[in-house]
Formats: sequence, structure tokens, C-alpha cells
Amino acid sequence: MDEMLGFFEDIQQDLQVVERELRSVVRTQNSLLTETSIHLLNAGGKRLRPALSLFGAKFYNFNLEKVLPLAVALELIHMSSLVHDDVVDASMTRRGAPTVKAKWGNSISTHIGTYFFARSLILLARYEETPLISKILSDTSVKMCEGEIQQISASFDLQQSLRDYLYRIKRKTALLIAASVQLGAVACGAPRSIHLPLRRYGHSIGMAFQITDDILDIVSNQGQLGKPVGGDLRQGIITLPVIYALARSDRQERLEELVHKVEKSEEEVQESIRIIRGCGAIEYSFEIALKYIRKAKEELKSLPNIPTRLTLSSAADFVGIRKF
Amino acid sequence: MDEMLGFFEDIQQDLQVVERELRSVVRTQNSLLTETSIHLLNAGGKRLRPALSLFGAKFYNFNLEKVLPLAVALELIHMSSLVHDDVVDASMTRRGAPTVKAKWGNSISTHIGTYFFARSLILLARYEETPLISKILSDTSVKMCEGEIQQISASFDLQQSLRDYLYRIKRKTALLIAASVQLGAVACGAPRSIHLPLRRYGHSIGMAFQITDDILDIVSNQGQLGKPVGGDLRQGIITLPVIYALARSDRQERLEELVHKVEKSEEEVQESIRIIRGCGAIEYSFEIALKYIRKAKEELKSLPNIPTRLTLSSAADFVGIRKF
Repeated sequence: MDEMLGFFEDIQQDLQVVERELRSVVRTQNSLLTETSIHLLNAGGKRLRPALSLFGAKFYNFNLEKVLPLAVALELIHMSSLVHDDVVDASMTRRGAPTVKAKWGNSISTHIGTYFFARSLILLARYEETPLISKILSDTSVKMCEGEIQQISASFDLQQSLRDYLYRIKRKTALLIAASVQLGAVACGAPRSIHLPLRRYGHSIGMAFQITDDILDIVSNQGQLGKPVGGDLRQGIITLPVIYALARSDRQERLEELVHKVEKSEEEVQESIRIIRGCGAIEYSFEIALKYIRKAKEELKSLPNIPTRLTLSSAADFVGIRKF
Repeated sequence: MDEMLGFFEDIQQDLQVVERELRSVVRTQNSLLTETSIHLLNAGGKRLRPALSLFGAKFYNFNLEKVLPLAVALELIHMSSLVHDDVVDASMTRRGAPTVKAKWGNSISTHIGTYFFARSLILLARYEETPLISKILSDTSVKMCEGEIQQISASFDLQQSLRDYLYRIKRKTALLIAASVQLGAVACGAPRSIHLPLRRYGHSIGMAFQITDDILDIVSNQGQLGKPVGGDLRQGIITLPVIYALARSDRQERLEELVHKVEKSEEEVQESIRIIRGCGAIEYSFEIALKYIRKAKEELKSLPNIPTRLTLSSAADFVGIRKF
């Protein structure tokens, strides 16, 4: 996924400022808290949401100072949800590095996640004059939790529709990405005619991003993914390729049995993957992702034709072709 | 602790409105999320923070509509921290009822806690005209997390001073109580000459409240407490009576050994309690709590002499005499 960094060239210097600010705001008197926070920041991440907010800001009177607190807050909210996610799924690695949970336990993870979230609020409080920013982000945060809970209540549940899946990934991923692009513009004072198409662009690439993520969890390999393949299957998370395969595969009954099993052996995970790959589920899921990518690019047409517009268009294409 | 409800008589009807609102805001499409939220609300709680915000509001142009979103948000923030605390300490009961964690697991607890917190932000977004409310509550939330992390990093650590302890309980308890009384008045438009003394009053009763809580954990019994006595000792949380006893008891070395032990038998917990009770640690801690109570009552003197002032004064006294 590192190729995505190529799109960040235009904003590389600004992103470095974001990175410095990120490190500065999480620092605190408590050494355990500082150590854990720095570990999380060092574990990487593409800073996709800050980058998207900077791109959004380019469409209207770009001013780094105005968008900086937002950019940092978006990454903190995102990282907060990753850390809380680690409490959930008991996964012990993320991006190849040990998760906070594996290193410090559930309790620390929970509080660090909340700490990052609360820290973001202090930054957002600077946008007194632009209450839309806080409003959209509180609404998004509530919906992100709903998505997570939905994912847990639906785990190992074979009766899921495409609609359930889309409801879930919208909350889990797309809304925060949509908010990132939109609010970058809002922070610089952009009117609705600019920030609404940006939001819709963000929503569509967010959906495509999660779908390709879910595809990669099945067709990638551990080296590329930075975590074991089939993680979703192991956790009982029913993603789009699985929903398709459960409905269409000629080995449907065997797949039901495998997916439903709470403790799967490595061989059972591999067998599930073979069934899913063998029935056209990957191609189908990829088609849905492509629909969102086309929609995203369509949204860009109503925006001013600045160089960033082309960058966002290429970024949308990239979501569809990354590493598989 | 149910006697405290006596002080709430003047505001009982308003508290019922808060209760209805609380139940209405947590409702959502997801049935697991709604079920868990209602379970948490039914598990009780005195609604101390909403009540204190209503009392604060009485000092300046009381208007229930103005203070209601704040009152509900305060309880949500408090409950969020309780639920996240349950992830931390692995305690399986709270107030006699099974905790969310015991019933639904760590992952759900983490997300419900964050859900409550995020819900509170939507309510707080209504105070666009009064940015002080969001500012104080984001700052308080960050510090609450710092307090929790501090508690974890200091667990089983025998080298703790009174100062470390006060730093911790300020963040863990006092700041949110201080904010509750202060912001109730702020929400109704009160000037600094009113909301600042209220904040200081709240800070002092918050400190006293946590100290008596820590005393009760040692001298109470399971029936009164609604959870097993000695819980803090078991979790390695070094509270004020323990700090005193470690410095002053003539059985100091044995206590060090017992407190430091990560897995304590019931007999070892009881032995620790006997050593702590036997050296004057309870009387000492009670003295410190009383100092805060006197300070709280002192703060009230600069406020208008309305009936609520007497209620707050009695409430402060009550913190010192509850159930032991």
C-alpha cells in the first residue's frame, strides 16, 4: 500500500508538519502514556485521513494553519478506533508490529484509545466559528461505534445481505474518510457547492477502500498484508466476498459449515478461501468496488479543475488496483 | 449511599426529565446496542453529576431546557468511564449487577463506552454559543484518561506519595464533578463570580468523595458496597489508607509484601485490611476527606444565599458520613 504515498507528493511538507504536531499533542507527563502513544505513531499508517483533509482544503483558500488541528484530530480519531478495535478482535499484530494490546493489555488499549479520542476534541474545540466540524465528527464517531457493535453482533451470522454489509462498512470506514475530505474544505471556509461533492467523493472511495481491504484479506499473503490472511474469517466477520460465495458457490453448504465454526484450523481457513476464490466472489466484489470508484471520479467533475482534482482522481483509481 | 437521594428532593422532577432524555438518546437501530445501553441505565447510579449540574444551574436564571443536554452528557461521560474501567480491572460485578464486560465481553464494553462518550458530544454540540462547556469537558476527558493510565502504571508500586494519590483522584473523580457543578451554572449564563466558586466546591467534594470511596473499600462490607471489599488491594491500586499504613504501620514490612503480591488469597486480603485498620490509616484518611469537605463548604460562602446553597452544604457533609 506504500505506493499510495506517491499521491502525497504535493502535500509532503504539510504532512510533515502534521506528523510533528501529532507527536507533540500526544505528549504528556505520564511516561507510560507517552511511550504507548509514540509506539502507536511509530507503528506507521499512511496518514490517509490527514492527507485527504489537506487535499480537500486545496479546493478553497488553502491555509495550513486552518486545517492543521483538523488533520491531526482526524488521525487521532482513526487511531483511537484502531486501538479499540484491537481490544475487540484479540488480534495480536497490526501492520507487522505488535499491537498495543499485545504489548500492554486490554486495559491500557482501552484508555489510550479514549485518550486519543479525547485529545482530538481539544483540537476540534478550536473551530468555534465552524460548528459544522464538531457536529459532523461527533455524528461520525457515534456511527463508527454503531458500525463496530453491528460487526460484533453480526459475527458468525450467515443471514447477512449486501445491504447489511454496506451499512456496516459505511460506518466503519467510509464516513470518516468522507468527513476528512469534506471538512478540510470546510476548515478553509469553502461553500457547500465545494464541500458536499468532496464529501460524496470521500464516501465513495471510503466504500471502495473497505471492499478492497476485505478482498485483500482473502487473496493477499501475509507479507503484503502485514497480518495473517483470512483474519476476518477467523473472527467471524462476514465480508462481501463471503456473502457472495454463501449465496452462489456450488460448495455453499460446506462453506456455511466452515464460516460458522468459531474455532477454525489453518486448513479450514485455507479451504474457505479456496471455496470463496473459486466461485467468482472476488471478481464480483471487485466490480462493486469499481462502481464506487467510478462514482467517486464522477463527483470530482463538479469541482474546480485544479491539479489536486487530478490527484484525487488518480487516488480513486489506485484504491482499485492496490496489491492484488 | 441511597441516602444521598434525599438531597435530590428539590430537583426530583427535573431529574426524571433527565432520566427520560438519557434513555431516549442512547436508543439506536442496533438491538444489541440498545439492550446493552438500557442494561447499563437500569443498573442504577445516583445520577450525581446531572444532579450537581442542576444544582449549579439554580444559582443563575435556572432553565431546565438550557441545562438538560449538559446533564445528560455528564452522565454519559461518567458511564463511559465506568464501562471502560470494567475493561481495565476485570471486575465482574458493579453495584451488585453483572458488568457489561461480564455479560458481553471486553470488545462490546469498549465500544459501548466509546458510544456513550461520542453520544455526549452530539449533545454538547448544542452549546455553540458557550464554547467553554466543550472546552472544559474535552480537557476533563483527556485528564480522566491520564488518571486511569496513571492508576494502571502505578499499580502494585509501593513508592507512592500522597501527592501521587491526589494527582490521580483529581483526574479520576474530582474534575468531572467540578465540571458538573460549574457548567450547570455556565449553561444558564452565569458569570465567573458564580461558576468559579461552584467549580471549586465541586472539586473539593469530588476529592472527598473519592477518599471516602477508598476508605469504604477497606472498612465496608460486601452488602453495603455492592461489590467485594478490598477490591482496590486485589487490583494493586494503592489508595490513601494504604499509603499511610505503608509509611506508619509497625507491620510495615509484612504489608509491603502483601500489597505487592499480584495474586492475593482472601486471607491475605483480610490480613492487609487488619494491618491498615490497625495503624490509624482510616482515621488519617478521614481527616483528609474532612479537610476537603470544610473547603467545599467555605467556597459556598461567596455564592448567593439561595436554598440550594444549604442543600449543597448538607451534601458536602453527607459525603463525610456515608455508611461507615
